Amino acid sequence: MDRRRVESILRALRGGTLSVGEAMESLRSLPFEDLGFATLDSHRAMRRGFPEAVYCPGKTDAQVARIIERLSARHDTVLATRVRPGTAKAVAARVGKGKVHEFPEARMLVVGRMPNPRSGRIAVLTAGTSDVPVAEEAAVTAEAMGHRVDRIYDVGVAGVHRLLDKRTRLDRARVIVVVAGMEGALPSVVSGLVEAPVIAVPTSVGYGASFDGLAALLGMMNACSPGVAVVNIDNGFGAGYLAALLDR
Amino acid sequence: MDRRRVESILRALRGGTLSVGEAMESLRSLPFEDLGFATLDSHRAMRRGFPEAVYCPGKTDAQVARIIERLSARHDTVLATRVRPGTAKAVAARVGKGKVHEFPEARMLVVGRMPNPRSGRIAVLTAGTSDVPVAEEAAVTAEAMGHRVDRIYDVGVAGVHRLLDKRTRLDRARVIVVVAGMEGALPSVVSGLVEAPVIAVPTSVGYGASFDGLAALLGMMNACSPGVAVVNIDNGFGAGYLAALLDR
Amino acid sequence: MDRRRVESILRALRGGTLSVGEAMESLRSLPFEDLGFATLDSHRAMRRGFPEAVYCPGKTDAQVARIIERLSARHDTVLATRVRPGTAKAVAARVGKGKVHEFPEARMLVVGRMPNPRSGRIAVLTAGTSDVPVAEEAAVTAEAMGHRVDRIYDVGVAGVHRLLDKRTRLDRARVIVVVAGMEGALPSVVSGLVEAPVIAVPTSVGYGASFDGLAALLGMMNACSPGVAVVNIDNGFGAGYLAALLDR
Amino acid sequence: MDRRRVESILRALRGGTLSVGEAMESLRSLPFEDLGFATLDSHRAMRRGFPEAVYCPGKTDAQVARIIERLSARHDTVLATRVRPGTAKAVAARVGKGKVHEFPEARMLVVGRMPNPRSGRIAVLTAGTSDVPVAEEAAVTAEAMGHRVDRIYDVGVAGVHRLLDKRTRLDRARVIVVVAGMEGALPSVVSGLVEAPVIAVPTSVGYGASFDGLAALLGMMNACSPGVAVVNIDNGFGAGYLAALLDR
Amino acid sequence: MDRRRVESILRALRGGTLSVGEAMESLRSLPFEDLGFATLDSHRAMRRGFPEAVYCPGKTDAQVARIIERLSARHDTVLATRVRPGTAKAVAARVGKGKVHEFPEARMLVVGRMPNPRSGRIAVLTAGTSDVPVAEEAAVTAEAMGHRVDRIYDVGVAGVHRLLDKRTRLDRARVIVVVAGMEGALPSVVSGLVEAPVIAVPTSVGYGASFDGLAALLGMMNACSPGVAVVNIDNGFGAGYLAALLDR
Amino acid sequence: MDRRRVESILRALRGGTLSVGEAMESLRSLPFEDLGFATLDSHRAMRRGFPEAVYCPGKTDAQVARIIERLSARHDTVLATRVRPGTAKAVAARVGKGKVHEFPEARMLVVGRMPNPRSGRIAVLTAGTSDVPVAEEAAVTAEAMGHRVDRIYDVGVAGVHRLLDKRTRLDRARVIVVVAGMEGALPSVVSGLVEAPVIAVPTSVGYGASFDGLAALLGMMNACSPGVAVVNIDNGFGAGYLAALLDR
Amino acid sequence: MDRRRVESILRALRGGTLSVGEAMESLRSLPFEDLGFATLDSHRAMRRGFPEAVYCPGKTDAQVARIIERLSARHDTVLATRVRPGTAKAVAARVGKGKVHEFPEARMLVVGRMPNPRSGRIAVLTAGTSDVPVAEEAAVTAEAMGHRVDRIYDVGVAGVHRLLDKRTRLDRARVIVVVAGMEGALPSVVSGLVEAPVIAVPTSVGYGASFDGLAALLGMMNACSPGVAVVNIDNGFGAGYLAALLDR
Amino acid sequence: MDRRRVESILRALRGGTLSVGEAMESLRSLPFEDLGFATLDSHRAMRRGFPEAVYCPGKTDAQVARIIERLSARHDTVLATRVRPGTAKAVAARVGKGKVHEFPEARMLVVGRMPNPRSGRIAVLTAGTSDVPVAEEAAVTAEAMGHRVDRIYDVGVAGVHRLLDKRTRLDRARVIVVVAGMEGALPSVVSGLVEAPVIAVPTSVGYGASFDGLAALLGMMNACSPGVAVVNIDNGFGAGYLAALLDR
Repeated sequence: MDRRRVESILRALRGGTLSVGEAMESLRSLPFEDLGFATLDSHRAMRRGFPEAVYCPGKTDAQVARIIERLSARHDTVLATRVRPGTAKAVAARVGKGKVHEFPEARMLVVGRMPNPRSGRIAVLTAGTSDVPVAEEAAVTAEAMGHRVDRIYDVGVAGVHRLLDKRTRLDRARVIVVVAGMEGALPSVVSGLVEAPVIAVPTSVGYGASFDGLAALLGMMNACSPGVAVVNIDNGFGAGYLAALLDR
Repeated sequence: MDRRRVESILRALRGGTLSVGEAMESLRSLPFEDLGFATLDSHRAMRRGFPEAVYCPGKTDAQVARIIERLSARHDTVLATRVRPGTAKAVAARVGKGKVHEFPEARMLVVGRMPNPRSGRIAVLTAGTSDVPVAEEAAVTAEAMGHRVDRIYDVGVAGVHRLLDKRTRLDRARVIVVVAGMEGALPSVVSGLVEAPVIAVPTSVGYGASFDGLAALLGMMNACSPGVAVVNIDNGFGAGYLAALLDR
Repeated sequence: MDRRRVESILRALRGGTLSVGEAMESLRSLPFEDLGFATLDSHRAMRRGFPEAVYCPGKTDAQVARIIERLSARHDTVLATRVRPGTAKAVAARVGKGKVHEFPEARMLVVGRMPNPRSGRIAVLTAGTSDVPVAEEAAVTAEAMGHRVDRIYDVGVAGVHRLLDKRTRLDRARVIVVVAGMEGALPSVVSGLVEAPVIAVPTSVGYGASFDGLAALLGMMNACSPGVAVVNIDNGFGAGYLAALLDR
Repeated sequence: MDRRRVESILRALRGGTLSVGEAMESLRSLPFEDLGFATLDSHRAMRRGFPEAVYCPGKTDAQVARIIERLSARHDTVLATRVRPGTAKAVAARVGKGKVHEFPEARMLVVGRMPNPRSGRIAVLTAGTSDVPVAEEAAVTAEAMGHRVDRIYDVGVAGVHRLLDKRTRLDRARVIVVVAGMEGALPSVVSGLVEAPVIAVPTSVGYGASFDGLAALLGMMNACSPGVAVVNIDNGFGAGYLAALLDR
Repeated sequence: MDRRRVESILRALRGGTLSVGEAMESLRSLPFEDLGFATLDSHRAMRRGFPEAVYCPGKTDAQVARIIERLSARHDTVLATRVRPGTAKAVAARVGKGKVHEFPEARMLVVGRMPNPRSGRIAVLTAGTSDVPVAEEAAVTAEAMGHRVDRIYDVGVAGVHRLLDKRTRLDRARVIVVVAGMEGALPSVVSGLVEAPVIAVPTSVGYGASFDGLAALLGMMNACSPGVAVVNIDNGFGAGYLAALLDR
Repeated sequence: MDRRRVESILRALRGGTLSVGEAMESLRSLPFEDLGFATLDSHRAMRRGFPEAVYCPGKTDAQVARIIERLSARHDTVLATRVRPGTAKAVAARVGKGKVHEFPEARMLVVGRMPNPRSGRIAVLTAGTSDVPVAEEAAVTAEAMGHRVDRIYDVGVAGVHRLLDKRTRLDRARVIVVVAGMEGALPSVVSGLVEAPVIAVPTSVGYGASFDGLAALLGMMNACSPGVAVVNIDNGFGAGYLAALLDR
Repeated sequence: MDRRRVESILRALRGGTLSVGEAMESLRSLPFEDLGFATLDSHRAMRRGFPEAVYCPGKTDAQVARIIERLSARHDTVLATRVRPGTAKAVAARVGKGKVHEFPEARMLVVGRMPNPRSGRIAVLTAGTSDVPVAEEAAVTAEAMGHRVDRIYDVGVAGVHRLLDKRTRLDRARVIVVVAGMEGALPSVVSGLVEAPVIAVPTSVGYGASFDGLAALLGMMNACSPGVAVVNIDNGFGAGYLAALLDR
Repeated sequence: MDRRRVESILRALRGGTLSVGEAMESLRSLPFEDLGFATLDSHRAMRRGFPEAVYCPGKTDAQVARIIERLSARHDTVLATRVRPGTAKAVAARVGKGKVHEFPEARMLVVGRMPNPRSGRIAVLTAGTSDVPVAEEAAVTAEAMGHRVDRIYDVGVAGVHRLLDKRTRLDRARVIVVVAGMEGALPSVVSGLVEAPVIAVPTSVGYGASFDGLAALLGMMNACSPGVAVVNIDNGFGAGYLAALLDR
């Protein structure tokens, strides 16, 4: 909870300028807003220092635009992930075109201020070129949270010298996001090479017995090197968000 | 690689006091030791600041003891996980009883110096009492790496007020390890409450459709709150190790 | 069976005004109708006090319309679930436009009399906004059976205070339907907070390792709080129907 | 929360006889007890009118006995499920032999007062004789909560006339618990015959492609008759508990 | 093998009118034809008394037409299953319109002579109306093999009296094909009622945890009544073919 | 139902020598017996011409013996499957040693009269020697139902000439039971060679990716030759029973 | 690594005409090229004697064309697999129409020189006609690597004599690629007939319980004849590539 | 078939010194022997140049001994895999102690002549020490077939420099067997480093989400480097056998 606000309310209560009923009313009404179809949770931003991202599949462009408009009124920066081509336009119509930054490869919008990268040191790796969209989702998320990202793409384990060649850049990173489909072996290898923690993102890239990312997911869960943790299949946003939390 | 050592060898090579053949020989023989059945990797300790842990299932007590003896010659602290009751004795016979610290609930040995906890702030939570052995494996691992651990057990989501009651201790943590079986819902709830990153450990606790931890694993992969990453089922060691990496 | 009818037939038989053969004929021909492609079961309505709902996928609009027309001749209220956009029109052409009530968000038709809500106390919750269509199917079903429904949407476990904020409304309910995708954790938390039984509906909302609702289904099956039972993935109708049975 | 207690504390706070710090202390210390390894949650009993049951696998007899002793100090009746043969003795040593009621077929203990059955009307069915232990767990649980149970065993769908023969007893029930392994078809058939809601319990009875109850679980999830909800595989306790909630 | 032909060749060989090489040549060239993309196996028809059916998915209309044309030159009756709307026309263009019998609900073509039903006694049942296309595939296959089929549709276990009402027709059948999706319980119930063997066909009808017919398949494999065997999901052709083999 | 008995009762009712209540009582009490833990279903034997077999796992030897004793009072021949070594003795103690026939390889008892083989023509094949116990269960079941069985063991597809060598015996069979683990390919090959229907029995023989018979089960479901139907993994009894039904 | 090049650089270093820094720079810059989205690995071609193939799904035609153009500059022959209809045109626009060889049935392009077949002896078999596209991918891959391929299609196990008829051609092969869907039984049978090693390719051909090739994959993994190894579902390229490696 | 023998028989037939009947009898009786429970297939040895190995689980020691005795009468070398501790003794009692070579780590017996290694060049790698038993099964199999094996153990991807250090030995191999559990990533990495084909053996080593080797199996099927094929989980024998076929 937003402790200072609560504190001031409770002091008023204690001081007698507020009844218990009024105090409860103040506490409840303030930061929650009810859009009818979605309870915006602005508490989370206060707790985490970052607004809630909007996951777009299953919501109409109009719903996305309305949610973002409301969130933008309170937050400097709002994210939308897995946007459709037309979503940017719908959002721009509500918040103004200048505030909408499109990242087509990452299928994302950053609405509001795009922060200047701080001195953070996150590396984002992919095993192949097909993993790039998920990696971009991770990278743009971390950048939108103010972190600097080093992209190292297409360094899968089938040509391990390509990875070893990037050793210096890996050593510089404080957190490494590794995005891989197929057998999902890259996180194990990377984690064996570096000191930094590794966030592994299985992708649904592959065919046949990859079973939409299940093979990569299981591979990463069984990484034989400690220092690896895994997020959901194709969940670039989650990986970028977590990397930003850890990069400090 | 151990850069300084390599550097001095290469300088000797360049300076002509070493032939290429001799240099290669020096590079290779030094930090690798071949026990016949296991190539000890003392490089990793140099890179990560911590020795390799020995995972005991599938190895005889004699093999475990021999591996630990060799590792102890080079490292202050060596871990053994999933030990059987008799393993401690076999290890003590080789390295001396005074160096072996037993943690029965965690099914672990810490061999060598048990470091004093630094000022670290790791919280380890469990959903139920049956999850405690896995949680202890995480906690002892982190403590053996010099971190302070706050144990908060039996705060599962079926009684969410028990968790809310621990809010202050959760807020103090820099990293939170959440250990849960059954439906694996606790990481989502915890991550929604705090700023710190959450490492989720599914356990094989449960019955019926828990399918030996698969339900908890899938639940955690789908955690609806960002800031959560998952390690393998029952992998307390991996969670504790990762938590220690992040707690700085 | 329709006991009174059977009874009067048997009495006639016993009284000698009916031969055994005639009696059997009467029993069989009466309440079963054969449309050629579907045996309408009007017995069930007598037993349960409610007509059979028509599940539309896999049936043409013409088939749906013909089944509903026939059912409407005997029942005050008939339901159609998972209707396509054009179904309402096809049905209206047969039974008259005034009898067809459309619920687009629930993808349902209620044909005939839409009952006034009795004093029932069913709460329908969702974890997120994407779960709303399934929740609406549950809510409209219960309303069509004459029950009052309190909709509490978007109160997922990632922001558990949003749920706690609704405590009073939860306490008022006699039965609670909880609709959730992703990790399916909400039923556990809700059931730990209230006295009422909880009907959990997993949804196919999510991506990656949600595996079309399997993760949520397994999560709910493993709910660590007693008082929870689960229906099929996305089965809003079943949940609403069961809730109406229990709300008395 | 226990509203009256909280209310009296808050009034004291408001009245000035308590500082905020003291009030918080009072609130927290009271109903929670910390046994070190398990946070007993006596709130739940207040909310639900029934104490928490102790699930014994994964706990030592000594732990079970200690938890039950503590719970018995506050509750008239405490349940233990899936007990081992020796558990009863360990519990009796702590709470007195007279208070421990053993139900070997159900693998349960009821500790304290075994209530006289009220006028409740729960029917518990099994498909085969191998399903009886799970059914007994359900039946004893409901009886320990004060309900009357009608046991109707071995009426599987392979001989549907055996089930039809019990029609009168089925019609008398307000809630029906159906326990079945193998293909799990019985709940569908039963639900098509009666007005009452059906709680389906898949069991791990079967072999080959029953996959430890998965076939029965999937079958029950897909029950083609509405009015059925499912609990976890072999979860007799959950079914009995839920049936008791619904039987009113 | 076609024994008489082989025999005459071997006699010629023995009689000296054929060399070994010529004999081998004769044996090989005769009944195998190579269309380049498919080796037609006319031996099987000789063995089984019926030609190979053509499974159309994955073949172009032109390929289907060409295969059927060739088969029709040797066989009175040829089947095509899972045809697309345009396939009939493509086949008719090659073999003549009069020879092509379309069965749209079964998605089949019968090319050549459609035999008059012999006195066979096969019953084909479905649980619901959505299972009808698969049932029709079974029925038309058996009819094309010269058997009489009694269709009994929409008699699922949720209304078991609908099934009991058909008892007389069931008792008349020598083989019963039972087609069912969802929980796949109908074969168990039917097999418990009759003497005849039951061929169970799981269908992909259902949603959610039916997992495209897996739930029905597992349910049928675990049928608790003996006398049931199962064919592949949606495999109406296989069931009809087998029923014809057994109906004698 | 036992029509003649019912008929005589109904005539008495019609004739007035019985009230409806008395008639119902007579109908119900007669052929059902209630052992408390198992409802014996002697109707099935009347319908199918064969008594119910007793599946022993999950029942105590004492329960098995008691059920068999009761069944033996009405039936000439009773089967017990998956017996433990001690079961025969427990049964013999109740029904007399002379009536118990042990088949250790098949893990079966035949209690009562072991019929002389009629002129039936069932072939039972196995792919390997490890599949023999399941095959023996099928063979003994069919023999106990009065059929003649030809055992053809260890003719797996890895040496297809071993199978071809048995062609004459295969051609003689009216029904073929094929028992195979590992990849389960034998039914496809056999069905392509013969006219007779094939009952495929997957076994749990194999290791690794055989997943306890799942690979064989899926292989057999996908048999590319029509005329194959599948029973549950290791279900020799079901296969033998069905073969006996078909062998006429 | 490209040993000669590295050697000449190291000699220069040792000879003093290169500093260590310059040497490292030379080593790194040379054979790696960075296209921004894909690190081309021309080392692999040096090691394996063949260029990397381009797997087209998930890449735009423009990306494919650009990658191929760059690879063509260094390699005589470049492969593209799973091409879309328009890809050939996009590639031709960059490298010249004369260099692009289309293989529509195999869904492949061979860009550059199509080698004349050497005297290699690879046989490629399919079980059915639907498996042909995957088989063609294998065959064209091996041909593009300079090997001679004997195509033997539609010889599935349901008509095992069709296969035996091809015995001579099988015996001639040094390596056999077997492509099969459904139950995947063909590799076992083939391997039992020949001396040559068998590469098994499961295909996603089939329906129902084939589960997109999983049944065939499991069947092949469990092949009861040694001498079989398996590649991924539908992975014709991998099978052809491996066959070319083995055919020497 | 054993062509020369068949040829001499056929010549006799042609020459008139044998009737067709006698010829057929000679052909059939000769190389097949029927032990009652297992048809020994000595043809395979003729075709492949190596006798059938005996897979011991599911066979008694006595059965194993009897099969081996018979095979030894015709073959220089016979293998037994997955032997129990007592098997060697039972076999020695039949064939003589001097002929039985035990390999306890490989859980194998080689009965008869243990050939001197030819100049073959097979490398067998393991990821960890727990994979060694499976690797030894592969190595001893290949050695028993007369090949030289280079064992390179414990070079998993978590310490990729350990693998790179063995580059020279890898380059020397003509075939490489890679044995790995957990995530199964080693084959991909190895295949990217060498020219030789790679046979991947997943092991059931691991815990949690390794699911008894499924994770490793899927990982290896999805290996992102071509030139890899996979055998069954823990199938060291199959890998060694195949390696021997390829090493020429």
